[in-house]
Parts: sequence; C-alpha cells; structure tokens
Amino acid sequence: MGLTLGELADIIGGELQGDPNCVISAVATLQNADSGSISFFANTVYRKHLQHTAAAAVIIRPEFAKECPTATIITANPYVAYARAAALIVPPASPRQGVHPSASIGRNCAIDASAWIGPNCIIEDGVHIDAGTQLAGGCFIGQDTRVRAGGYLHANVVICHGVNIGERVIIHPGAVIGSDGFGLAKENDRWLKVPQLGGVRIGNDVEIGANTSIDRGALDDTVIEDGVKLDNQIQVAHNVHIGEHTAIAGCVGISGSARIGRHCMIGGGAGIVGHLEIADNVTVTGMTMVTKSITSPGVYSSGVPAQENSDWNRNYARFRKLDQLARRLQALERRLDPKD
Amino acid sequence: MGLTLGELADIIGGELQGDPNCVISAVATLQNADSGSISFFANTVYRKHLQHTAAAAVIIRPEFAKECPTATIITANPYVAYARAAALIVPPASPRQGVHPSASIGRNCAIDASAWIGPNCIIEDGVHIDAGTQLAGGCFIGQDTRVRAGGYLHANVVICHGVNIGERVIIHPGAVIGSDGFGLAKENDRWLKVPQLGGVRIGNDVEIGANTSIDRGALDDTVIEDGVKLDNQIQVAHNVHIGEHTAIAGCVGISGSARIGRHCMIGGGAGIVGHLEIADNVTVTGMTMVTKSITSPGVYSSGVPAQENSDWNRNYARFRKLDQLARRLQALERRLDPKD
Amino acid sequence: MGLTLGELADIIGGELQGDPNCVISAVATLQNADSGSISFFANTVYRKHLQHTAAAAVIIRPEFAKECPTATIITANPYVAYARAAALIVPPASPRQGVHPSASIGRNCAIDASAWIGPNCIIEDGVHIDAGTQLAGGCFIGQDTRVRAGGYLHANVVICHGVNIGERVIIHPGAVIGSDGFGLAKENDRWLKVPQLGGVRIGNDVEIGANTSIDRGALDDTVIEDGVKLDNQIQVAHNVHIGEHTAIAGCVGISGSARIGRHCMIGGGAGIVGHLEIADNVTVTGMTMVTKSITSPGVYSSGVPAQENSDWNRNYARFRKLDQLARRLQALERRLDPKD
Repeated sequence: MGLTLGELADIIGGELQGDPNCVISAVATLQNADSGSISFFANTVYRKHLQHTAAAAVIIRPEFAKECPTATIITANPYVAYARAAALIVPPASPRQGVHPSASIGRNCAIDASAWIGPNCIIEDGVHIDAGTQLAGGCFIGQDTRVRAGGYLHANVVICHGVNIGERVIIHPGAVIGSDGFGLAKENDRWLKVPQLGGVRIGNDVEIGANTSIDRGALDDTVIEDGVKLDNQIQVAHNVHIGEHTAIAGCVGISGSARIGRHCMIGGGAGIVGHLEIADNVTVTGMTMVTKSITSPGVYSSGVPAQENSDWNRNYARFRKLDQLARRLQALERRLDPKD
Repeated sequence: MGLTLGELADIIGGELQGDPNCVISAVATLQNADSGSISFFANTVYRKHLQHTAAAAVIIRPEFAKECPTATIITANPYVAYARAAALIVPPASPRQGVHPSASIGRNCAIDASAWIGPNCIIEDGVHIDAGTQLAGGCFIGQDTRVRAGGYLHANVVICHGVNIGERVIIHPGAVIGSDGFGLAKENDRWLKVPQLGGVRIGNDVEIGANTSIDRGALDDTVIEDGVKLDNQIQVAHNVHIGEHTAIAGCVGISGSARIGRHCMIGGGAGIVGHLEIADNVTVTGMTMVTKSITSPGVYSSGVPAQENSDWNRNYARFRKLDQLARRLQALERRLDPKD
Repeated sequence: MGLTLGELADIIGGELQGDPNCVISAVATLQNADSGSISFFANTVYRKHLQHTAAAAVIIRPEFAKECPTATIITANPYVAYARAAALIVPPASPRQGVHPSASIGRNCAIDASAWIGPNCIIEDGVHIDAGTQLAGGCFIGQDTRVRAGGYLHANVVICHGVNIGERVIIHPGAVIGSDGFGLAKENDRWLKVPQLGGVRIGNDVEIGANTSIDRGALDDTVIEDGVKLDNQIQVAHNVHIGEHTAIAGCVGISGSARIGRHCMIGGGAGIVGHLEIADNVTVTGMTMVTKSITSPGVYSSGVPAQENSDWNRNYARFRKLDQLARRLQALERRLDPKD
C-alpha cells in the first residue's frame, strides 16, 4: 500500500508544495509522523507540534503553510482532505461474502450473495440484507427488518423486528435499534404497558455509536434521517424525529416525540425533553437540558462549568435562596426610589 | 384479525357512541388513522389533530367527545383503554416453545417445556426458566439464576449468576442484570476489588429497558420490587432498592445503596446519590441530582433549562461570584439600616 | 469452605480479640450476619447496626472496637481487610480451560491452553488470549487483539481489532472496547467519516463496567493506564488518556483527547470536555461538567442539588436574569457611593 504525494494531492484536491514522487504509506499525528507518513494540521491547539513535525508532508490551510517545515498539501479544509487521504492510505478491511455456518437464518429471508452474515448471527423470518452489507458476528436481526446495501453492523448489534435501515449505515457494537418505547399508562397506581406498534426508519449514511439505543415508535415510526451521526451511549426514545445531517455526541438522552431539525449539533450529555421541536441549525452545548421548543437557529446552553468545590458550595448556597436575594434587592431599590 | 367497536367498547369498559358493528383492524394516531382504525385522544397537545381525524373511532374522555368528528368510545382514562385495545387488535407474536439446537444448556437446569430458548443462548448450570418464558436469542443466563413464568428476554440480554427474576418480566436487548457492583477499597493509593457476593431480586411485572445495567449487591441483594418500570440506558448500582410501581426514565444513574420508594417517578438523566432514601410518591424531574434523602412526597428539581448561549454565559459568569454578590447586597442593606 | 478467625486475622493482618478457633464460613452485613459469618464496620452510617450484630466477628477500626458486642479483628482499614477476607471465604468460581465447541476461532490465533473460550465466542484472526484468561460466552474479539494473562471477560463483551489489554483485566457484560471514535469532518453541510486508525491500550488490573464503551484512537491510541477502575455506562471517547489508579463512577462521559491524571476520582454522571487536562489527585463530584483544564489537585464541582420544585422554579426564574440582577445591584452601589 502506498501513494505518492502527487497522487494524493490530485485525489484530495490540494496544492502540493514538495516532491510529487515521495511515497506515503501511513498517516500519523504531527508528533508521531515519520518520513513515510502524511499528517494534517486542523486544530490550532496543536500548533506547537507543527514546527517540529517529521512528517513527509502536512495537509494544511494556506495561512499556516509557512510554519510547516516539510512538504505541504494546501487546501481550505485540511480535516476533510485528511479524512479522504486516510481512507486511501489505510483502506478498510475487504468485505466478506456469504453466511457463516454458525449463523441462524429464518424463513423467507433475502440475503444478497455479496453480503456477509458473520458467526452466530440470528436472522429472523422475512429479513432483507442487501448487497455488500456486513454483519460482523453475534448480531440479531428481527422479523421483517431490512438493512439496505453497503451497511456495516459491528458485533452484537441488535435490530428488532420491522426496522428499516438505509444504505451505507454503520452501527457500532452493542447498539440496539427498535426496542420498545417506554410507553406506560397509569391505572390505579399501577403501570399498564402500552403496546409499541411503530417501527424505526433510518436513512442513508447514518452512523450509530456503541451501546446506543433507539426505540421503535408507539404507533408511527421513530425516524432518523439521512446523514445523521449518533455517538455512543445515546438514548433515542419512541417517535423521536432527527433531521438530516444532525450530529449528536455521546450520552445524550432524547425523550419521546421530540423533533430535532436538520444540521443541528447536540453536545455530549445533553437532555431533550419530549414533545418539543428544535429548529434546523441549532447547536446545543454539552450537558444542556432543552425543556422548550427552540424556534431559531443559534447556540443554546445550560451546562454548568465546574468550580473549585468550596466556591461552588458557597455560590450554590446563595442560589438556593436566589429568589429571596432578588426580593431583598428589590426592597432596597424601592426604599431608595419609592416611586419605582 | 379484527374486532367490532361494540366488542372493543365492552372489553375496555367504555361507552360507545357509534356503530357497534364497525370492524376495527388497526390502531393509529389521530393524523394517520383511516376508516379501519381506532385512535385515542389523551394528550391535549394533539387537539388540533382531533377534529380532522379520519379514524373509525376515537377513545376519548367525556369532555372532549363533542370535538370528535367520528364515533367515540368514552372513558375516564383513554390511554389505559387504548393500551388494552391495542393489545387486542395487534396481539404480540405467538410464543415459541423448545430449545433451539444452537443454544448451549448447562447441567441441572430446569427449563419448562413451554419456554423458548432461542438461538445461541447460553444457559449455565442450575438455571430455572419457568413456563412460557421466551429468550429471543444470544442471551446469557448465569449459574443458578431463575427466570419465572411468562417472561420475555429480548436478544443479547445478560443475566449473571444467582439472580432471581419474577413473573412476566420483560427485559429489552443488551440489558445486563447482576454484574459486579463498583466496590473498591483503597489501599496505599491503589484500588482493591471488593468481592460482590449479593444477588439481584426482581419482582413481578417489571420491565427493564435496552442497555440498562443493574449491579448485583455487595452482600445483600439489589432489589427491584413488583411493577417497577425502567427505561433504557439506566445504571442501577449495588444494593439499590426500588419500591413497587416506581417508573424511571432513560439515562438515570442510581448510586449504591440508594433506596427509592414506591410509586415514584424519576425523570430522564437524573442522578441519585448513594446511601440515601427517597420517600414514596416522590417525583424527581429530568436531569435533577438528588443529594440528600427526600422524606416527603412531592416534586423535586434541579435540572437547568437551556437559554440562548450568550444569556447563559452572562448569567453563569454572575453565578460564579454569587456569594460575593450576596455579600455586596448585605453590605448595602447594613449601610441603609445599620441596626439590622 | 471455612477458615478460623485466627487464620483470617493472620492473613488480613489484624489483631484478633476473640476465639481464634471459631470457624467462619460466610460474610454478611452487620444486620444479616449470623454466628458463622464475619462482618465489617467501615461506614459510620451503619453504626446503629453495630451494637445489635449477631456476627461471629466484626472487622473494625480500633476506635470503634468497644462498641462491638462480638469478637473483633482490629485493623486500620477494615474495608480493605474485609475485601481480602471475603475473597478467601467465598472464593471465585474455579477457572475453566479450553475452547467450547460452539466458539468460532480465526486463523493464526494464540490461545493459551489454560484459557477458557466460552460458548459462542467469536475470535478473529491473529488474536492472542494469554494464560488463564476467561471469556464467559458470546464475546467477540477482533483481529490482532491481545488479552493478556489472568483476564476475565464476562458475557457479550466486544473487543474490536487491534486492542491491547493488560493482565488481570476484568470486563463486565456488554462493554465495548475499540469501537470507532466519533470523528467527523464537515464538508458542504455534510459529515464525512474520518477513519479511526488508532487502537486502545489498557494496562494491568483495570476493571471496566457493564455496557461501558471505550473508543479506539483516531491515530494514536486511547490509553487506560494500570489500575484504572471504570464503572457501568461510561463513555470514553477517542484518544482519551486516563492515568493510573483513577476511578470513574457510572454514567460519566469523557470527550475526545481529554487527559485525566493519576489517582483521580470522577463522580457519577460527570462530563469531561475534550482536549483538556486534569491533574493528578483531582476529585470531580457527581454530575459536574469539567470545561477547562484543572491544574491543581483538589475537589471540583458543578452538580446542582435538588430543591422542592416550587423553590427551584422561583430560584431558576431569578437565575435567568441574574446578570440583570447584578447590574441592578451595581447601580444601587454607585448611587450610594458615586466615587466607586
């Protein structure tokens, strides 16, 4: 495996400053790169490493090229160019084909000959697995579910019945799609289970993180649109709708029937209350709780940054009585200015 | 499949206003219902959809019946009535019986003939699986564990050794019951593992969500009483005790030896500190941190709602010095009223 | 199984006050102990149970020994001594050896004859499983991964390719190690996947909780040093580095490239922002959000304790306008003291 700098610059669409015949066989960080590696500079936090890099070349924005001691491939978006370069230099493992003898296949399934059903997978009746889709092993695919072409289900993924998954969807280990929503009706102080009869619809080019769970709809489907990226340990409740190309970081919880727009970014550990709408192009920062609909694009926050504990305790003690404190202020204001 | 409106009204105990012979074969939301479907109206958020519904009938409270353009089944609790109706109209898949040849069964197990042990299940020695209980596939049941009658373990559920599970318990994919608690003793700056020798006792009619984990007790058992409902991605630490019919939403973390009362509701993303008690009939709202025992029923909160980021930053900057601000206020008060 | 009090006191290094020939065959809490059990007193919350205990003996600190009605083993650190005693009195199940016939083993693997590969495990090509390591069942070990000696992988653990795991590492059910990091580059409003080419390096004596996930590095490795203890439901993002003997409680989320020092304690539900450093010996309390590097040892907090909901709402309403309130205070101060 190896490409020349000239080939790489052509493919990723950058301007090469250096020897086009230099062969690149690895990608590496600025600190760890050697003369066979290409690196990239995209986060100014790592500027100190740029001037000492031993990389064969660095993918970089024009304004920083002068600071780089090595060959450069100059481009407006080095991180995107790097992502393309890395996929070429370190290609993913070749797809496998066929059905491992230990897999258990139901009736009336349509498993494309170019798909791979790994060891100990359980495929229930009526499942479709389309061209090239890879199931690493230990996956469970429930009745009448379809996984379209080009997908990759890592080990021990569970997809329940009646789930519809688009093309080129990547699902990381331990993720669960289509489990019952948390639907409970209260009757005489007891909870009655409400049947969860909807499905899950997942678009194309979606990625779903390890141990993330996405519940099926109560009646209509839970919907994840094209290009959505979900990190690990996320909870998506029944009938949530996530718009195209929205990215959601780890440990986020989204309550039932929340509707998140397109091109949103939701920070890690955030919580979204149910039955609300978030507009397109909204950013929610980490550990924020969204309790009402957000109707305009912008950045929204309520994550509370840490303080030294004794400061925090003092401040929080005041917060516990903040309303009283505000009333005391008001009293002073009235006293000084009675007509107010 | 199909019941008449008359039959449905009888079974769910509502008053039918409409044609008792109309045949219902599906359930649907107000928006998506057609002339073969029954719908329900329980959340006034969806009032706008009521007047345009094409449902054959709507399950509804008496005070809203007039707004409904179609037949109605009138009842005090439409959500409960709907849950019953849905279970009749769309019955769950028929239970299976037997042991799939790929399952691995230990010695001295008692697996009822009416139970189903799906593909690739691993049943260790001394396990009891009682009448009708279904293990979908890929489940692991540790030594000497018992799952009582009528249970449903979805795919890839792990129950460790010595766990006792009641009747009609539903466990969703990827849930883990009986893993070791986080018991560590510090010795010379290192952590020594404390053996986790208790078990887990789970009552009847409990439901446990996808990828939720419940640790075994350190010495005594972790206890989940009858009728408790746990959503997805919840962490229940060792020796937690959750009282009857308490419902806990997704992403909640409960620390060791916390004791939660009966009929409580814990909102999503809440955190409960260890070694405390929460009384019966307590509601904890989303993303709240409970740090002390709660001794009276009521609603408790500390989840912080989002603001526009620049407002949030300005307010938080003040919060960081709230104690100082309170002192400044006090100083003014003293100045204006020295005898205070 | 059974040891005498004399043997126990010798092994755990405590001073016995009582009959050295008394045989102990169980461990129990102070409340539940009987005349064949040893108990311990380490948390003063349980002082009330000490005087009524029916235990054969209690492991206890010297200053509380007088309050104990039974024999005692006196030691400076009863919890450590108890952990040792418990491991002797209730030894773990004997290790198994061999490869279960249902396991699927790749090419060029080196599986030590004293290791156990349980039912339905999937071992891909080039995997090393060293002496004595136990894989309970349903585990997936990706290509070229190594698990060193004395490890215990509980059921349904997934370790992806190219992961390096030290000696005596315990991994609880459903944990995922080496899944892809959440690396995305934005191009024209869409997300391009950035190949995740690093691995995960896990030191010796690490413990990893149920359903926890640890992502592989983007280029360099994600690193978990010796003696680190991770509870359940934790998310460790790509290129995180966790220093020796740090303990992290459940539901914590750690963002990419965060570097956590040695001997830290991170409370449950905390969130750590990416690309920052936390010094050694730092304690972060529960549900705190760390947004900046912490450079000094100490305790840091931002978890907000619950209040009765109506108090909370009143206080939060003031918080929403805290900046304004501070300005009003400043205006009063200026009015009373114009030269300020």
